[in-house]
Amino acid sequence: MPAFQSCGVVTLTTDFGQEGPFVATMKGRILSRFAAARIIDVTHEILVHWPVEAGFWLARSFPYFPEGTVHVAVVDPGVGTERDIVVLQAAGHVFLAPDNGLLSPVLARAGDSSAYRVTARHLEPFRLGVPSATFHGRDIFAPLAAELAAGRVQPQDLGHPARDLAIGWTDEPERGPHGVRGVVITIDHFGNLITNIDEALLTGLVRPLVRAGNHAVPLRRTYGEMKPGEYLALINSFGVLEIARAEKSAAEGLGLGRGAPVVVTSG
Amino acid sequence: MPAFQSCGVVTLTTDFGQEGPFVATMKGRILSRFAAARIIDVTHEILVHWPVEAGFWLARSFPYFPEGTVHVAVVDPGVGTERDIVVLQAAGHVFLAPDNGLLSPVLARAGDSSAYRVTARHLEPFRLGVPSATFHGRDIFAPLAAELAAGRVQPQDLGHPARDLAIGWTDEPERGPHGVRGVVITIDHFGNLITNIDEALLTGLVRPLVRAGNHAVPLRRTYGEMKPGEYLALINSFGVLEIARAEKSAAEGLGLGRGAPVVVTSG
Amino acid sequence: MPAFQSCGVVTLTTDFGQEGPFVATMKGRILSRFAAARIIDVTHEILVHWPVEAGFWLARSFPYFPEGTVHVAVVDPGVGTERDIVVLQAAGHVFLAPDNGLLSPVLARAGDSSAYRVTARHLEPFRLGVPSATFHGRDIFAPLAAELAAGRVQPQDLGHPARDLAIGWTDEPERGPHGVRGVVITIDHFGNLITNIDEALLTGLVRPLVRAGNHAVPLRRTYGEMKPGEYLALINSFGVLEIARAEKSAAEGLGLGRGAPVVVTSG
Repeated sequence: MPAFQSCGVVTLTTDFGQEGPFVATMKGRILSRFAAARIIDVTHEILVHWPVEAGFWLARSFPYFPEGTVHVAVVDPGVGTERDIVVLQAAGHVFLAPDNGLLSPVLARAGDSSAYRVTARHLEPFRLGVPSATFHGRDIFAPLAAELAAGRVQPQDLGHPARDLAIGWTDEPERGPHGVRGVVITIDHFGNLITNIDEALLTGLVRPLVRAGNHAVPLRRTYGEMKPGEYLALINSFGVLEIARAEKSAAEGLGLGRGAPVVVTSG
Repeated sequence: MPAFQSCGVVTLTTDFGQEGPFVATMKGRILSRFAAARIIDVTHEILVHWPVEAGFWLARSFPYFPEGTVHVAVVDPGVGTERDIVVLQAAGHVFLAPDNGLLSPVLARAGDSSAYRVTARHLEPFRLGVPSATFHGRDIFAPLAAELAAGRVQPQDLGHPARDLAIGWTDEPERGPHGVRGVVITIDHFGNLITNIDEALLTGLVRPLVRAGNHAVPLRRTYGEMKPGEYLALINSFGVLEIARAEKSAAEGLGLGRGAPVVVTSG
Repeated sequence: MPAFQSCGVVTLTTDFGQEGPFVATMKGRILSRFAAARIIDVTHEILVHWPVEAGFWLARSFPYFPEGTVHVAVVDPGVGTERDIVVLQAAGHVFLAPDNGLLSPVLARAGDSSAYRVTARHLEPFRLGVPSATFHGRDIFAPLAAELAAGRVQPQDLGHPARDLAIGWTDEPERGPHGVRGVVITIDHFGNLITNIDEALLTGLVRPLVRAGNHAVPLRRTYGEMKPGEYLALINSFGVLEIARAEKSAAEGLGLGRGAPVVVTSG
């Protein structure tokens, strides 16, 4: 794996919401070690304690950032327990996350990658002080991200090689005799239900019909083809199947949320 | 029109909310093309699919940014249909928005301006790839904003001159024989009802009385003059009429929201 | 007091929420005067008109920012009345806030400090124009923060020495014969109830028991020691007592909120 070439950008993905200085103190610690860091919030509205959604978005959004970006994702129900911290180098980017399956979708998409498991010994040179029991995002992830983004360390300096990262909490979608099965992973601000079913899985289906709850919805190209209030499914701008309602919230209209099973068959 | 002199600042105004990486991937694409961009979120809480509110705020907030700022506004119910993209140069700033009336309040206030309608041919040199059908904010607006902010292109490089931009969705407020008529355009975090009635329209009214729903509220100078719970109207910090409730939410108290008619008469 | 050495970082703490361009126009005005400012949002979700929460977070989060940071906090129920603006230099940082008790927790923790009360005469050199009656954050605080962060002025240039700042709205927690008494100051995105009781106040208590509402909760080290749904108290990552519920919201479960009294005794 070639050396990581930082571009100075750090992204943050958490389930911390907008309340309190939790994200801000992560940024403060990053700037304290690397004054020139350019820090971008991916989102802090990941469903609380659900790494699945963070990994889903990270895997699909990192390619829009410059090569050399450091991505920090902290959705960490196990903070304070013995779960490890992982550094993953892939596709010219670096990812820092708890070893709880969060990075599973990144691993699945990023091609060649190298993962490292952070150990206490590897942390020593950085004089992090005693981290709090409950906020490793600020006390460990942020300073490590700063060191990586500053170009002062390489991923392999931060841990020993890891080949057995924790696996994701949801099954990858698959195509079987009864169609393609996946789940709703996230809901956007418009109420669109976004699934983990990639476009490629639908190849060859004839007039695809998308079933969720007790509804069946046709696959269209874009919202504009429907009348207000009509349901449709489409391949969204991140290349995955989404159930939408023209000018309304599909999530509210269908009463479905994260984790809901979705099946696509020929119509 | 003199050449646009970029200051390197890009602002973003959308109805995307805080969920998901929608805003973030716009920022990623901007930084990928212009690493030194300083990106400021105006707000992402515009009422979904209501360009009126975005244009209202943009027209009244852009003067607080340095000259040479590029303002991107994406409230785009027509994404995926044939609506155009507009580049507007005015007052030393540049605005990028869908041609759906969003920029109407900017045009009305900015004095001399030049507008350009983006065409496929003008986009060719930027090698944007095939844009998604549903996220032009990330796939077209963001890279164009980066090119403008980087100083590599001028507004007129991006389209052919446009003289017939789509008009706004709400009437401009006007003064008639029965008083000044406008509407509530937005509600702030405190529950203040903010109208599109500019202070100048009220000149000459005697003891102005503001009517909304079945309420009549006196015009005062500031919140501090009232007792907790009392309603008042005032000219707010953006120079427009606002209906407020001292230490409480006027929106909740009056049961009014965006689009509600407001009339001001002499008392 | 040694001269203030700016590092170019400005933080913002307000109760403005995410709606509208209120925070954004503060940033615009900062960038207009100091183009190289790096601006970090601490939070804009302070409980509306409750300076107590802003001061609490500011006092506990500022040490995570680089020395030389300028912190602007605008929770300002008295805007438009005669309340003053205060500039506080302490611990190598500078704080700008209304004189309404907001800075009280910073003063209590920061050791040596110098406070200045801003006067109209001191503002003259900055040509701020006529500030609005209702948005000093944008019209006064932001440009002053820019001047400080740019290193063009020192705190003492902005006002005359002040020794009698307004006091805070809540009592400092104290240890009495019946235990340690404090209050819930804030609630995080996870529903944890965060109090103003610092760890040091609990020294010497045996098997501490935390009482809030009609509940009694044991003090533990971290969330991970409990089963889902169980309540616990812990010293959180900011060194204060917090009441939590494993994998759930303690605020919802207990029906408690900001201002709720909390008492800790030996168990």
